[in-house]
Amino acid sequence: MLKFVVSKSEVQEKISVASSSIGSRTVDPILQCLLFKPVNGHINIHATDLQTSVISTVKVGEYEGSESFAVDADLIDDIVRNLPEDEVIFEYANGKLLIKSGKARYNLTTVSDVERFPIIETDEGGIKFSIDTSILEEMLDRVSFCASSESAMRALNGVYWEVHGGFLRLVASDGYRLALAEQKLDIDNEFDFIIALKSVKELEKLLSSTTEPTINITFDHSIVSFNAGDVTMIVRTVEETFPDYKRVLPKAFKTRVVLNSDDFSEALKRVMVIAKRGTEKVQLKISDDVMELSSQSPDYGDAVENIPVTKDGEDLIVNFNPKFLSEAIKHIDEKEVEFNFVDNLSPLQINPRNVEGYMYIVLPVRA
Amino acid sequence: MLKFVVSKSEVQEKISVASSSIGSRTVDPILQCLLFKPVNGHINIHATDLQTSVISTVKVGEYEGSESFAVDADLIDDIVRNLPEDEVIFEYANGKLLIKSGKARYNLTTVSDVERFPIIETDEGGIKFSIDTSILEEMLDRVSFCASSESAMRALNGVYWEVHGGFLRLVASDGYRLALAEQKLDIDNEFDFIIALKSVKELEKLLSSTTEPTINITFDHSIVSFNAGDVTMIVRTVEETFPDYKRVLPKAFKTRVVLNSDDFSEALKRVMVIAKRGTEKVQLKISDDVMELSSQSPDYGDAVENIPVTKDGEDLIVNFNPKFLSEAIKHIDEKEVEFNFVDNLSPLQINPRNVEGYMYIVLPVRA
Repeated sequence: MLKFVVSKSEVQEKISVASSSIGSRTVDPILQCLLFKPVNGHINIHATDLQTSVISTVKVGEYEGSESFAVDADLIDDIVRNLPEDEVIFEYANGKLLIKSGKARYNLTTVSDVERFPIIETDEGGIKFSIDTSILEEMLDRVSFCASSESAMRALNGVYWEVHGGFLRLVASDGYRLALAEQKLDIDNEFDFIIALKSVKELEKLLSSTTEPTINITFDHSIVSFNAGDVTMIVRTVEETFPDYKRVLPKAFKTRVVLNSDDFSEALKRVMVIAKRGTEKVQLKISDDVMELSSQSPDYGDAVENIPVTKDGEDLIVNFNPKFLSEAIKHIDEKEVEFNFVDNLSPLQINPRNVEGYMYIVLPVRA
Repeated sequence: MLKFVVSKSEVQEKISVASSSIGSRTVDPILQCLLFKPVNGHINIHATDLQTSVISTVKVGEYEGSESFAVDADLIDDIVRNLPEDEVIFEYANGKLLIKSGKARYNLTTVSDVERFPIIETDEGGIKFSIDTSILEEMLDRVSFCASSESAMRALNGVYWEVHGGFLRLVASDGYRLALAEQKLDIDNEFDFIIALKSVKELEKLLSSTTEPTINITFDHSIVSFNAGDVTMIVRTVEETFPDYKRVLPKAFKTRVVLNSDDFSEALKRVMVIAKRGTEKVQLKISDDVMELSSQSPDYGDAVENIPVTKDGEDLIVNFNPKFLSEAIKHIDEKEVEFNFVDNLSPLQINPRNVEGYMYIVLPVRA
């Protein structure tokens, strides 16, 4: 038996956080469930897809009984979201869960073999560090879009975390482009790990929904946990070695261009109208203080536009996949941006001007 | 040759209205194009999928030349929407269309055999009548959702228009439910026609986007045209006979229930959480001044709720597809609604209380 009264908004929020980590197609039906487990005066909601697990703690006045129950996550999310009143009564007994709110009554079937639910416990040990929620959220936003989702190199299907020399560095790459974000941290240990893109997306959801100012992270080799107040996310790391990204960082730039990111995005958007119907290619032609953007389509015609830039170094003509440029500019989200070129075959480095700690590397395409 | 200067907002709006009527998969590539044709000091944009045609008139200052050109609708829509400045210059010559706005330049390929573009002309003859835009919009909204999109009876895949005894009556049915809306009109003629659902949807878009208070309709047997200021939509009617809907309108009601539509929708939404995972069925149990809504799912459990109603006549237990009830209530959009029952096998009539001219008929399902 387990009985508790809870506010709709509290239980709705905690169910929503937990159920978002559940895969829609799991082999084992128990993984589509949430486990409600009474612990030390609270109810913990557990969800897992075996790679990412979430424990969210529901504040309840008090509860009677000590049994756990598991119920379909989508169903309970759907029910709670639509309940008529703020006071919600949960009564679990003999395998049946009764939910009451106002005049609404649900009498639900629960999972019979609840002890099969895989609870991933966090260890007391491991290396602990903390980071501002908003900083981690921005860092992930600036790199995770470069991660691959289907590379044969499993290490690329995620975000690389490297703690080294008092810095946390996040790196992601799909082989054609790479993003890097770093932040000074108060930590002496040195270690690294890879988190799969699916878990990264769950973590990003957690960071954007929490009101906690700080995330407490515990690294314990194969497991990393992220705690934000009432919610803890536990992630299995990807057991692969990330490629040596430092070898691809370009050096000895021959052309440096500073431009306004809005000007560039707007002009790029217009030449992309043609590029996406043709060669999926945009040409940048840099001469004096003008960058000309152009694209061709054999069926539809061509588009051309130019924007003012400040240039140091040589003139240059170079081609890119326009999607890779527009995504980079969008995620930099700074007004002034630097384009650092070596030549028309070497990677281009894009970074915000006068802001440390972020950079993008993009490979050109052949003309 | 054809050259004109136009404001971005004007040409964008007129392109958008026209291109929305174009099917995404047409056999003939010329049907994916818009035809720009100079006529009497304006530029007319023509679009057609052979069933529905749109002519939208673009206001231009003046133009040089008299040639027509045709260009891919998606492309021109995409280009114009993203142009940087309000002043846009179109220059067509020798099969090439140059578009200039600010620093942006597009040099586009146009269709070579432009005379193949099928222009559907409106006749001067036919029966003419007018109706308030907002009234026609509401009438269509209240009936079109009941039309079928894939019935073997082609007449059901559209909305039936019947002008009779000084009334316009719109009727749609998919065989399980039927909606009817009527409005007094200043017209003596008697005629009827069917408009296919796809054309109805285009007409609904036109009605919601126009600022014209009145729609002028011309009926000419196989063709009906709808004029709203600068935009005219020309529709081929469906050459089928609509079933005699008057025979299915229920009579001799034994139970009449008046209820608050918000109460009903909210309770229905909650029992549907279970119904959509189970039998796709909701039971209404009417006794005294209470309606109990309930649903069962063999896998998930059951839900039950009741709402206060005012009842005249016999108690009743009857089952429905809940989707058909929720869509009816949503489209009635009135606070007080009447449910008129004959028995648990006969069609239920739902109508707003104290509002003439609208009704829904829904068949029950077996328990």
